[in-house]
Amino acid sequence: MSDDVLFDRVALIGIGLIGSSLARAMKQFGLARDITCSARSQASRDKALELGLVSRASADAASVAADADLVVLCTPVGTYAGLAAEIAPVLRPGTIVSDVGSVKMAVVQDVAPLLPEGVPFVPAHPIAGTEFSGPESGFAELFRGRWCLLTPPEGTDPVAVEKVAELWRRCGSMVEIMDAARHDRVLAITSHLPHLIAYTIVGTATDLEEDTRSEVIKFSASGFRDFTRIAASDPVMWRDIFLSNREAVLEVIQRFTEDLTALQRAIRRGEGDTLEDLFTRTRAIRRSIVDAKQA
Amino acid sequence: MSDDVLFDRVALIGIGLIGSSLARAMKQFGLARDITCSARSQASRDKALELGLVSRASADAASVAADADLVVLCTPVGTYAGLAAEIAPVLRPGTIVSDVGSVKMAVVQDVAPLLPEGVPFVPAHPIAGTEFSGPESGFAELFRGRWCLLTPPEGTDPVAVEKVAELWRRCGSMVEIMDAARHDRVLAITSHLPHLIAYTIVGTATDLEEDTRSEVIKFSASGFRDFTRIAASDPVMWRDIFLSNREAVLEVIQRFTEDLTALQRAIRRGEGDTLEDLFTRTRAIRRSIVDAKQA
Repeated sequence: MSDDVLFDRVALIGIGLIGSSLARAMKQFGLARDITCSARSQASRDKALELGLVSRASADAASVAADADLVVLCTPVGTYAGLAAEIAPVLRPGTIVSDVGSVKMAVVQDVAPLLPEGVPFVPAHPIAGTEFSGPESGFAELFRGRWCLLTPPEGTDPVAVEKVAELWRRCGSMVEIMDAARHDRVLAITSHLPHLIAYTIVGTATDLEEDTRSEVIKFSASGFRDFTRIAASDPVMWRDIFLSNREAVLEVIQRFTEDLTALQRAIRRGEGDTLEDLFTRTRAIRRSIVDAKQA
Repeated sequence: MSDDVLFDRVALIGIGLIGSSLARAMKQFGLARDITCSARSQASRDKALELGLVSRASADAASVAADADLVVLCTPVGTYAGLAAEIAPVLRPGTIVSDVGSVKMAVVQDVAPLLPEGVPFVPAHPIAGTEFSGPESGFAELFRGRWCLLTPPEGTDPVAVEKVAELWRRCGSMVEIMDAARHDRVLAITSHLPHLIAYTIVGTATDLEEDTRSEVIKFSASGFRDFTRIAASDPVMWRDIFLSNREAVLEVIQRFTEDLTALQRAIRRGEGDTLEDLFTRTRAIRRSIVDAKQA
């Protein structure tokens, strides 16, 4: 097992769904000699210790980051700047800082300038998740067969990048290096817009009169149900994603709204061919995703 | 088994996902002595016979409806008026006509006036489906644990309503009687709007430049992937649903667009509390659906 060890001490800042899944995967595959975490809530710290995910859990990020050789930010992206400022003074040269955030441009801007000389920042985004939160929701297989995108700024130490890449590959992920701006544009459409729309439609349903709302819940199968699962994702995490990827998200909302308006018009005017043409095209896209083994 | 038989001869007009699943369920539970079908395409007729779903498959709806005691329309709802006109002249008094369409007001208007005296129309909507089409995609368990909504017009023979209700209960469904207009309003939000939005967003993605589009497919996990599954549903069936439930669908699009515009504004202005409040409310709705055992 010692051959498999990639890091001596890993400090996870935050131990929710992703952080706890990473802890489990690192333990399962023997990737770290020691794992510690920090978490704001006592309940999360207690749970992480009780589950045996970490050897130590602290309320203070700096205290676990101080002697780590890998620090991974696993909190909502809106907290990164504050956390980076807290841990920066105690980081030893050679320590690698990484993260798991769903937005990358803002994260690079928030974190990289605060880190001391000799502490590389390797931004990472494992494209995996569920609608559940908290340390008890994680599982070691969450990342298996899923992409993990790394968006290191130009000039990032390539050895550090490769170490983080290897960590994710050992967790079962396929790793790809990508430009941060491009990452944010692609994820705006594949992930951020779908979540925003799911939140919107479920919100629209909650605003219905009481009797209709109860029927909406009762007869939610087929369509709505899938949206409610997406719209059950962590509220704070997603608030931060939309605020941090504002420009790209606003741009795809604009495109989406134009397209929806065109369909609305086709329905109002009874233009069946317009509808059928689109619905036939979208079926083909599904086929591509099934072929790409991402279904 | 003969105790279980509800109908001597059932004629399925159309033998796609729902029609073929109903045929399989009726066979499995011994609900009909004989099942026949009509289908426009030779391929569907051949497949239905090859799979042993029906004893006879005809291109002519009237020829199978003529000696049936239950006729079930299982084609896209836009075809109903034409089919009702075709079969009406051959229907024997006492025959029950039903359907499986996702829209009910338009269906009642299209079909009921064309049927002869003594032939009751019992509109039904099994809330079940997958993104796959055709007789080979069906399975007997499709309706198990799912709702089937019946929307009989006032004055419909209660014995006929109860026979159709019993058919669906025997297929494993929970049956509820509902007003057609109310059905269409509830389904507009639980099913029709989610499908329209999924079609839209997948369409928006297909319009991206080629290189971005391939990355959208590659990194489709988490959000977009779920939309593509919904947007892979049968194009003609869904075209007809939107055209037939136009008023209710346009009304929910309007509400949805207002809500999306408010969120767009909150993102532009950086109003995190507005986002977090909504996302917390929507999480609670998911909980209701899980509690209602519809997840």
